[in-house]
Amino acid sequence: MDAFRPLTVDLPAWVPTLLGQRTHVVSDDERVALAIALARENVAHGSGGPFGAAVFDDRTGRLIAVGTNSVRRLGNCVLHAEVMALMFAVQQAGTHAFDRAAPPAIMLATSCDPCAMCLGAVLWSGVRRVVCGATREDALAIGFDEGPVFPASLQYLADRGITFTHGVRRAEACAVLHDFVAAGNPVY
Amino acid sequence: MDAFRPLTVDLPAWVPTLLGQRTHVVSDDERVALAIALARENVAHGSGGPFGAAVFDDRTGRLIAVGTNSVRRLGNCVLHAEVMALMFAVQQAGTHAFDRAAPPAIMLATSCDPCAMCLGAVLWSGVRRVVCGATREDALAIGFDEGPVFPASLQYLADRGITFTHGVRRAEACAVLHDFVAAGNPVY
Repeated sequence: MDAFRPLTVDLPAWVPTLLGQRTHVVSDDERVALAIALARENVAHGSGGPFGAAVFDDRTGRLIAVGTNSVRRLGNCVLHAEVMALMFAVQQAGTHAFDRAAPPAIMLATSCDPCAMCLGAVLWSGVRRVVCGATREDALAIGFDEGPVFPASLQYLADRGITFTHGVRRAEACAVLHDFVAAGNPVY
Repeated sequence: MDAFRPLTVDLPAWVPTLLGQRTHVVSDDERVALAIALARENVAHGSGGPFGAAVFDDRTGRLIAVGTNSVRRLGNCVLHAEVMALMFAVQQAGTHAFDRAAPPAIMLATSCDPCAMCLGAVLWSGVRRVVCGATREDALAIGFDEGPVFPASLQYLADRGITFTHGVRRAEACAVLHDFVAAGNPVY
């Protein structure tokens, strides 16, 4: 069976240039700004959907990993920006998941509220805090499906110590979504 | 940033031997039996948690791809059996997702009800039918967290044409879960 062939997950070639010498990002606002920049560049380079994400050590602001929507670039429906960032973050940390009960506290910044799959990945990753740009409603309004995410879903994560902040730099994040659609890209 | 390093996802080395010359599996019962066998062998070989999955062309029974829980083997919290099987299946098919509205109809057989993350992955994958062994309640009863999955979650997928069958070969599927725990393995 040819499906025994391993698969490789990588970031677009333009990512190191975007990040430059940046190693730490301190404020939530700037962390989400980076996630939005990843989303915007992903669209500009035609390397995927309008979604970006980044994982940080929440105390020091150290940038651990980033992700860009790579569904079409890598031909893989699972490779949303958040899944990419979390996969690279745990690889980088040499663990299968961060320990939510021990330092360092890990946070995820995203350009848009995570879909149902990514919300599950957040739960398993050990991330303690998620800060998002565009909201679920913003994504739905332009035709993206976010999957079965309910208030009870966020409460389920809250009960396990995971907090969410929504709508940071929302207008800027929404602009990336709208530009993607306006350029005639497929919404899936 | 070392996180630019690509990551590789592969199946355990014992999988081709387990599958042997098997290319088609016709009944739901036998498809779930294969998913359970993958789970059982995964535990026996110490290559991951007690979960297996397989993707089939639903009409012909052609086996497209398989997955085994690889969270600890590959150090990656995202690599549940279902995510693995779906990633390999779309790679195998040369698409980012199957078209739910066009042939071939694709189905997923699992050794246990999918968690919240895998349920989201099912939605994005284009799979139309999911047939499961052990139930969510069986997994919860021995200490596995399944994440925020509610009746409304399954209804959300049903509204998009995705049907679920639960509890196929349930006792056999549960035995794998129980044997995993009884052997002193960590439940995470």
